[in-house]
Amino acid sequence: MNIYDIAQKAGVSIATVSRVMNGSGKVSAQTRDRVLKIIEEENYTPNIFAQGLGQGTAHTVGILVPDIDNLYMSSALSCLENALTEAGYLCILGCSTYAASAKEAHVRMMLDKKVAALILVGSTYAGSGLSPEETDYIRQAAETVPVFLINGQVDGKDVYCATCDDRSAVLEVTKALLENGRRRILFLSDSHSFSARQKLSGYEEAHRALSLEPDPSLNLHIHNNIEETKGCLKALFPPNGPQAFDAVAAVEDGLAIGALKYAQEAGIRVPEDLEIVGYNNSRLCQCCTPELTSVDGRLSDLCRVTVENLINVLDGEDDVPALTTLPALSLRRGTTKN
Amino acid sequence: MNIYDIAQKAGVSIATVSRVMNGSGKVSAQTRDRVLKIIEEENYTPNIFAQGLGQGTAHTVGILVPDIDNLYMSSALSCLENALTEAGYLCILGCSTYAASAKEAHVRMMLDKKVAALILVGSTYAGSGLSPEETDYIRQAAETVPVFLINGQVDGKDVYCATCDDRSAVLEVTKALLENGRRRILFLSDSHSFSARQKLSGYEEAHRALSLEPDPSLNLHIHNNIEETKGCLKALFPPNGPQAFDAVAAVEDGLAIGALKYAQEAGIRVPEDLEIVGYNNSRLCQCCTPELTSVDGRLSDLCRVTVENLINVLDGEDDVPALTTLPALSLRRGTTKN
Repeated sequence: MNIYDIAQKAGVSIATVSRVMNGSGKVSAQTRDRVLKIIEEENYTPNIFAQGLGQGTAHTVGILVPDIDNLYMSSALSCLENALTEAGYLCILGCSTYAASAKEAHVRMMLDKKVAALILVGSTYAGSGLSPEETDYIRQAAETVPVFLINGQVDGKDVYCATCDDRSAVLEVTKALLENGRRRILFLSDSHSFSARQKLSGYEEAHRALSLEPDPSLNLHIHNNIEETKGCLKALFPPNGPQAFDAVAAVEDGLAIGALKYAQEAGIRVPEDLEIVGYNNSRLCQCCTPELTSVDGRLSDLCRVTVENLINVLDGEDDVPALTTLPALSLRRGTTKN
Repeated sequence: MNIYDIAQKAGVSIATVSRVMNGSGKVSAQTRDRVLKIIEEENYTPNIFAQGLGQGTAHTVGILVPDIDNLYMSSALSCLENALTEAGYLCILGCSTYAASAKEAHVRMMLDKKVAALILVGSTYAGSGLSPEETDYIRQAAETVPVFLINGQVDGKDVYCATCDDRSAVLEVTKALLENGRRRILFLSDSHSFSARQKLSGYEEAHRALSLEPDPSLNLHIHNNIEETKGCLKALFPPNGPQAFDAVAAVEDGLAIGALKYAQEAGIRVPEDLEIVGYNNSRLCQCCTPELTSVDGRLSDLCRVTVENLINVLDGEDDVPALTTLPALSLRRGTTKN
């Protein structure tokens, strides 16, 4: 018996049950009595009280990330934790890794812990795009509590997504490189996630707009670690051979810096002979020389929107958008021309 | 009424009460019966059941950091979360900021949430060293649950600390710089935390060992942000003036990279005319050129030791050390000679 069953039995929306339970918002006395009667009859203990955490008013929000030791994830956790704490929520944190079975197990564990809502941070939760069944675990979870995705898109009832328009951002970045005369643009990715696929599609679209076909050998999927990226590029494109690419569009800053390190060892001038663009505008961008041009995926705004939506859903608002997509911001630094 | 009161009433150790509650370890039937009788008489609900989280066997551990969006903290959270999850614990995460009153409030909030133990990550929780009363809140918390500090040292019953020997590490680093003929070593710090004080003391001791007195104008306390550090150094030591320092020992990698950026703008050759050493061996070290020599504070080992100690304390072991101090590792890269 969960809030959905109570709502159905009472013939009202979940929103209304939530309002009655929170003692907030406008509910007629008649409706309130009906809902309370069903709660009593069913001996229903709403999540927020079942938790036994604090004064019974504190909702607990479960947040899952695949990896905490990742600049994007730790920034997201920081933003979410600040906003949720300010709104009076308690956060339970889980780290699921990237494995499908582990992600599903962690979601189930969070539900066992009676969270009021679940936030999944990272494109990996939206699956690899190979089969829609990959994301069934999210729709199943959303039968119990509302689920909020950051940087991933999944369709489903009570699933709310906040994404950045990664496709358009990489489309613009690639266009600018092509306009600078670059014709061999290396696309570096470290996953086949929803977000990585959006970025690849922007990269391809920019080429097609100029009736160009990107060289498939320049679409590299490698492990995201500066040293390993550099090593891999050295192995694929020996530094003493001809220069194999004249630009790099990476789905993550670490990959871009690996490419910069490769260029420095190979004596390739950046940005004169090689332009490099990263993604995420992480603090790594300002560590390297020249500093890295990058795309800001608006992570803190995605977190802010998600917390606002979460509060509204739990407060019983009916008009929370299922998908919020924000435009990215491009930040030009020393690794690109003009 | 908490586990301590039950232990006292039963005339046994907390360890024994814990063993009885967990149904683990060796406890005589007689002792078990006595403890269970008191638990019943006092109508005592042990934390692990009061939590209402899961099957009643899952302990919840509260983890506080001052700031999640910090490479040291996010690495610690990642290590702790992995090890605790593997051991069957659930983590509740809090972000306290660096303000004394906020740290105390967050510790109280965690206790309200009925955690089985509390882990505080970061030297800031051990106070500024100005007054022993600064850490009273930790001893008070330890009256309810065991408290574990990472990278800070606080004396108290049921307070367990894991630190790295930061003093010796900076002593060795500074000695090596002095042996290379450096005489004006800039000490860069961003806090007056326990750890920062240990590092300063190592810096001073290395000088005194050679009957040298460090120039107080070279002991700088500044905000830890690459851009701001660079800007501050430019303001204090104009790039077109004489070179004011010939080495940098920083308490954190970000500060060291700020100094490297300053040197690059000022046309000072690194490591020929300026050697730079960071601290924490974060991933920033490999982003810059030349790559940053740094001290590895053994964070993952500190986390591992802490989780082992926590499991042992909650399992009722009596011989868990109050302080574990690990030696640091020095990693020489391109910003220092030989």
